[in-house]
Amino acid sequence: MADDRELLCLSDSMEEEDDTDTDQWKNEGMKKNDPPSHDDSITKVAASVQSGVSEVQAEDGPDGCIPSFSRDSGDEESIEKVGNSIFYVDNQQESPSDENRGQLNMLSAAYESLDYDTCVNAAWLDEERTKGYTFVVKKDVARWLVVLMTAVLTALVACAIDITIEVLSKFKYTWLKTYTDYGVEQEALIIPYLLWVALNIGPTLVAAFLGSYIEPEAAGSGIPQVKCYLNGVKVPRVVRIKTLVAKAAGVTMSVLGGLAVGKEGPMIHSGAVIAAGVSQGKTTSLNHDFGFFEYFREDHEKRDFVSAGAAAGVAAAFGAPVGGVLFSLEEGASFWNQALTWRVFFGAMMSAFTLNLVLSAYNGVPGKLTYNGLLNFGKFEDLTYEIWEFIPFLLMGVMGGLLGALYNFINFKLTALRMRYITKPWQKIAEAVLVATTTASVAFLMIYGLEDCRKIEPKPEEGPNDRFPIQMFCNDGEESAVAAIWFQTPEKSVRSLLHDPSKSFEWVTLSVFFVCYFFLACWTYGLGIPSGLFIPTLLCGAAWGRLTGKLMTLLFPGHSWLNEGKYALVGAGAMLGGVVRMTISLTVILMECVGNITFGLPLMIVLMVAKWVGDFFNEGIYDMHIQMQGVPIMGWDAPPLSNNIYASEVLNRPVVTLRTVEKVGRIVGILKSCTYNGFPVVDSIPTAEEARNFKSYGTLRGTILRSQLTVLLKHKVFNENAQVWENSKVDIHLFRQSYPRFYTLREVDLTDDDLECTIDLRPFHNPSPYSVVSCTSLPRIFNLFRALGLRHLVVVNDSNEVVGMVTRKDLVKYRIWKHRGQMGLEELVIYGSVR
Amino acid sequence: MADDRELLCLSDSMEEEDDTDTDQWKNEGMKKNDPPSHDDSITKVAASVQSGVSEVQAEDGPDGCIPSFSRDSGDEESIEKVGNSIFYVDNQQESPSDENRGQLNMLSAAYESLDYDTCVNAAWLDEERTKGYTFVVKKDVARWLVVLMTAVLTALVACAIDITIEVLSKFKYTWLKTYTDYGVEQEALIIPYLLWVALNIGPTLVAAFLGSYIEPEAAGSGIPQVKCYLNGVKVPRVVRIKTLVAKAAGVTMSVLGGLAVGKEGPMIHSGAVIAAGVSQGKTTSLNHDFGFFEYFREDHEKRDFVSAGAAAGVAAAFGAPVGGVLFSLEEGASFWNQALTWRVFFGAMMSAFTLNLVLSAYNGVPGKLTYNGLLNFGKFEDLTYEIWEFIPFLLMGVMGGLLGALYNFINFKLTALRMRYITKPWQKIAEAVLVATTTASVAFLMIYGLEDCRKIEPKPEEGPNDRFPIQMFCNDGEESAVAAIWFQTPEKSVRSLLHDPSKSFEWVTLSVFFVCYFFLACWTYGLGIPSGLFIPTLLCGAAWGRLTGKLMTLLFPGHSWLNEGKYALVGAGAMLGGVVRMTISLTVILMECVGNITFGLPLMIVLMVAKWVGDFFNEGIYDMHIQMQGVPIMGWDAPPLSNNIYASEVLNRPVVTLRTVEKVGRIVGILKSCTYNGFPVVDSIPTAEEARNFKSYGTLRGTILRSQLTVLLKHKVFNENAQVWENSKVDIHLFRQSYPRFYTLREVDLTDDDLECTIDLRPFHNPSPYSVVSCTSLPRIFNLFRALGLRHLVVVNDSNEVVGMVTRKDLVKYRIWKHRGQMGLEELVIYGSVR
Repeated sequence: MADDRELLCLSDSMEEEDDTDTDQWKNEGMKKNDPPSHDDSITKVAASVQSGVSEVQAEDGPDGCIPSFSRDSGDEESIEKVGNSIFYVDNQQESPSDENRGQLNMLSAAYESLDYDTCVNAAWLDEERTKGYTFVVKKDVARWLVVLMTAVLTALVACAIDITIEVLSKFKYTWLKTYTDYGVEQEALIIPYLLWVALNIGPTLVAAFLGSYIEPEAAGSGIPQVKCYLNGVKVPRVVRIKTLVAKAAGVTMSVLGGLAVGKEGPMIHSGAVIAAGVSQGKTTSLNHDFGFFEYFREDHEKRDFVSAGAAAGVAAAFGAPVGGVLFSLEEGASFWNQALTWRVFFGAMMSAFTLNLVLSAYNGVPGKLTYNGLLNFGKFEDLTYEIWEFIPFLLMGVMGGLLGALYNFINFKLTALRMRYITKPWQKIAEAVLVATTTASVAFLMIYGLEDCRKIEPKPEEGPNDRFPIQMFCNDGEESAVAAIWFQTPEKSVRSLLHDPSKSFEWVTLSVFFVCYFFLACWTYGLGIPSGLFIPTLLCGAAWGRLTGKLMTLLFPGHSWLNEGKYALVGAGAMLGGVVRMTISLTVILMECVGNITFGLPLMIVLMVAKWVGDFFNEGIYDMHIQMQGVPIMGWDAPPLSNNIYASEVLNRPVVTLRTVEKVGRIVGILKSCTYNGFPVVDSIPTAEEARNFKSYGTLRGTILRSQLTVLLKHKVFNENAQVWENSKVDIHLFRQSYPRFYTLREVDLTDDDLECTIDLRPFHNPSPYSVVSCTSLPRIFNLFRALGLRHLVVVNDSNEVVGMVTRKDLVKYRIWKHRGQMGLEELVIYGSVR
Repeated sequence: MADDRELLCLSDSMEEEDDTDTDQWKNEGMKKNDPPSHDDSITKVAASVQSGVSEVQAEDGPDGCIPSFSRDSGDEESIEKVGNSIFYVDNQQESPSDENRGQLNMLSAAYESLDYDTCVNAAWLDEERTKGYTFVVKKDVARWLVVLMTAVLTALVACAIDITIEVLSKFKYTWLKTYTDYGVEQEALIIPYLLWVALNIGPTLVAAFLGSYIEPEAAGSGIPQVKCYLNGVKVPRVVRIKTLVAKAAGVTMSVLGGLAVGKEGPMIHSGAVIAAGVSQGKTTSLNHDFGFFEYFREDHEKRDFVSAGAAAGVAAAFGAPVGGVLFSLEEGASFWNQALTWRVFFGAMMSAFTLNLVLSAYNGVPGKLTYNGLLNFGKFEDLTYEIWEFIPFLLMGVMGGLLGALYNFINFKLTALRMRYITKPWQKIAEAVLVATTTASVAFLMIYGLEDCRKIEPKPEEGPNDRFPIQMFCNDGEESAVAAIWFQTPEKSVRSLLHDPSKSFEWVTLSVFFVCYFFLACWTYGLGIPSGLFIPTLLCGAAWGRLTGKLMTLLFPGHSWLNEGKYALVGAGAMLGGVVRMTISLTVILMECVGNITFGLPLMIVLMVAKWVGDFFNEGIYDMHIQMQGVPIMGWDAPPLSNNIYASEVLNRPVVTLRTVEKVGRIVGILKSCTYNGFPVVDSIPTAEEARNFKSYGTLRGTILRSQLTVLLKHKVFNENAQVWENSKVDIHLFRQSYPRFYTLREVDLTDDDLECTIDLRPFHNPSPYSVVSCTSLPRIFNLFRALGLRHLVVVNDSNEVVGMVTRKDLVKYRIWKHRGQMGLEELVIYGSVR
């Protein structure tokens, strides 16, 4: 912990959602128009670092903020850098030193929390009183409408991506096939090889450009980001329209670039973005406010819609509406209720239905409704199993867990390297190009080097133009089985491995393909391109699953039910389970992909074993990436055996408090010098001396947020000019207007006279904040946070006097680890600046 | 509101779980060994009734309890009566006056809450410190074991019920068929009629006896009880072994008695009982303590297992593991987390699997695993739909909603009558016999009166002895289609209606059957017998659904995909949705029963419309029965527009508080005279005068439960004999031993000397109870209760001094109603006695 002032930033920080320029301004602004005289009540205090679990070393002082004007320039530089820690990219703004990047035991202070707690203040009550039940009904109807629109739009985006990929890849592979056949004829295989490399590099470049320069948040699968958002962390830019466009276009290009990527994760992310966009009735990217659904402009409402959007995304991606609901549930169930679940389910159903409708119309069978999702495992004719087959299934589960753990380990090391050395956008693009070239080379070498010929058998479900049989060195009427895997999109390869008749692939083909693809997929995930993880993992798993199937047929010959496809399916499930470690939602998604309920039990057992085995070694890949980014994500439960950690050890001191009627000058000073987002409102502020002696900061009356204060300042709701604003509307509307990116201080024009005015905070503060006494144990605080979605919690003493504040990071930093049979509690290091 | 002392019982009451005898004792005990001198600090105060929403009329006084010895005998009688309000039966112990019985706007004060909040006191911490991580792992493994055992046992019970019904009903119908054929031949139809009546009455008598005399809690479907339990209400005797036995045997007999009942609801209840039994490692019914899983003896843990058991029950009943998980979720999601969901899903899967295994072995195809659940809709060969079919589906949804609302309305009226006039067990039995006779008569009359002959076509899936074709007045080689519906268990009738080829049934057959069965089912539900609701409702729906299908074929002839079975399925779904109004879980259960994912959307739409239409008129049937019983069940959200109701209006005053070090005499006095279950612990108790002036009852230090106090008294953990117990173990174990039925005062032997001793409550009280200030709005309190599963919440003033207590009933009494386009807030009447 290099920075002495870390404690100060444990509170949620950042007043803007994300923009760096405004951050930068903040310091300038302080220098410009802010003579120290206005901040007379602010004194510089040094807070010590809270290093041990068992004792608190916080020093006392009435105000815990360091006025920026007293900092040296080195500090200011670090301020400019932080606050934009995002996924995979953009690490110029990361603050941990190079050697600390990519570790698992760090928490970034830059992430803010979402606030699900409604601030029931007088202004809010006024609205409720005037609106009445009609408004309740209207809001309810609007909710259904938003979910419906989200679902339809998500499905349409999914269709657009799917159809574009299909059309363009048909071009690509037709072209490639022509030149390959020509190259084989002319014995100049370098021509198709170079063409292939070029055709891979082209789209990859576009994808990498979108994922590095245009919108770094669009890189990666999107599932970790959505997971963080649903968990209550404000991940900057994650639900922007710009992100959606970059993601949708980028993933199309990634898949087209022949990389080992899928489009399912990005679909889920797209659904989330669409939901956020539709529900807010305005877009930040296009800077337009449509003005409707204004009443949904609360973190609380927005998050509910995002969970519906994510479910719709899953439904569209996998044709798994129930799985989608369970996905949303598994990732963010703490704020769940029946009406919401039902709406989310409706959205998921409508999304699957719309996709089905559009795709069947596109494929010339309108109304036939057989295109359930983008990823379809196809129809298994007779997917039964014998009871003793649980033995191989269990072993495959173990195998999946081991391979998954290996995959995650390699990817972890790679990502750590990337976070340290591949930080510039151009470096990311270069890496993506390298991967694209390698993929093409490996594929080409495999096709060239392995001889695995088989008869060309037309598949009933495919049209004549859907396949590109490559003869290579095979006899006439035969095709290269290796080329058959490579000359199609990964989804189709999965389906081939699951459904091609037994003996379609040779041992060596599958083995070499598995090894190559495993490492390629591992390398690809985490590149600065939009890319899903599901398909490549399923493909790896299907490959070794099919190998297992071949082994089984060898060991137990003559059993008709021993088909290789079934084992490929189990292998795919095991591998995916070993990598992502999701539980019930993954099982149900796979069940729905297979379209078979009886086969649910084996799938579940395999996933469970894979998860257990994998968890023995490391975390799931999404959690790993989240941890590497230092996102303070909350688990389901407090760590076990943490009941002897008390609020008094967890809390942050000193606390900056405001009076119920406060001077504007002091508020401005605090907002400028301080990075806290929530301030307790107290009767009267004790002197520094008193605070030191009694270790309290005044009797708690309420809490007020930074965002509310800026709105009050912006609209000059001062007691002194009451006659001005009393007739105009000072209501909850004012606060909603600026959601989610509230005013910065720069947008507030205050004269010197204004600074002498006072604000009565009582109509606007939250008069009944949740609070706990200082002997409350960590799990009780954790449950409060988790169940109510809190952002701040006030810790009081026996006389209801404020003694400290607790935020998400203070709780998340206590983490339990369980690996290799060991278990323990670790305390994470929080990095980041004072902001 | 006849009773002035109602306010006093708003706090949770009753120290025993359920037993009437101990209740009775309580008054005797007070008279026996409790001279008024010991209760010097207790004064009789009269609490007024809090009738308005907007103002509090509570009177102040330091102690709010009425010493029982100062009551007149009339009061004592009323005490003996209450506390055992249960479902449908046993209403000698009901307290509302006759004319108030069976209303919807009443809450019974007799129901206690479960307590999901762990009391983290010093004793508890001691255990945590000594046990360490090994214990954490052990507990986790034990949880999986318990779930596995629950699942397997639930499935076995389900199999036992199913197989018994199958074997015995085969006897019954074989016999009946023989005599019917004989009767037709001899033109003496009175013989088969009388035989039928007798065969119906016999088993019904057994079922009614079990459901009235043996265990009244076993009557009904069990779903409302499980729902209440998962919601956090302590329904007496609902998870006892005795209830399980009565329920399992009873439902077998009910079905065998030919009544319009199903066995699915009771299966879910059975799962819940099994889970509670297995997890506690002891049985109250058999009075045996196996001693294992002692650490699961907390409301919190027990409830988690019960939700797993309920899910296992659904999985066994419908072959719907995912539906089972969603059922548990829909009924009690507030305490849900990922690990628990995963375990519940595992249990559901294992239950479905075990059932499948046993049933396939029983049916001679071991290992074939095609018997997914007790209720199986059978395999639909080609269940596709055209897009325009949504129009009839929507109309059927409306129809289902209307019929469901009618069904619920009739049943509501009937139940109200039952609650008033059919109160004695013998009356219940007589009614059951009457219904059994009527059912037989209606069936017989239908077979006799309607001529609907069809060829006997063997079904491939049925063996030669599975059908009982009744020729009646048909030609040779033909059977009566009417008899075909009646001469089998209702499940099989459902399957016939869904799968029999088109034109198997005449218009008139279906119409008459629907009308008769509708009223029979409506009459049957709520009888004092164990009986499920799903099957009869599905059967009604399938009947009119098939009628719709016939209509469609008539209107649009020549469409091959227009099969009657599909419409029967949609009708069945619509009807069930209209009656029970469940949402996502019902959809998924039906999807899993059908085994088809594509058909999920129409099912969902139909269920949604049916729910909306039905909700326009009244509540779902389960909720209606719960409300009629006055169970304080918590909704998902606080009523809308209730933000202007503050804690100060909701709370209960006066509050009985205890000192941190308290005299035994005073504790005993309070426990005897008072019915509260939780007591705030305060520094020092203000005098009556002070309390009246400052409206507070001392500075909050913690809370302690009645159950904890009795344990302390029982083991004489007094300061004065510290040397006696200090060496023995005074730890958390003591408190677990007596769970869930803690000691009554009678079991505590105290001498006069003991009463002069003192107890230090500090190591045992909860030092950090959740508390809110008195200006907290209702929704915020509601969220706390709902999300954390609280039982008591302390309301404090700005100086952390106790001003009141809030319990579940105080929140639940504010209820929103929305019917016929109107919406409003009603305040329920709380009845019941002081206890």
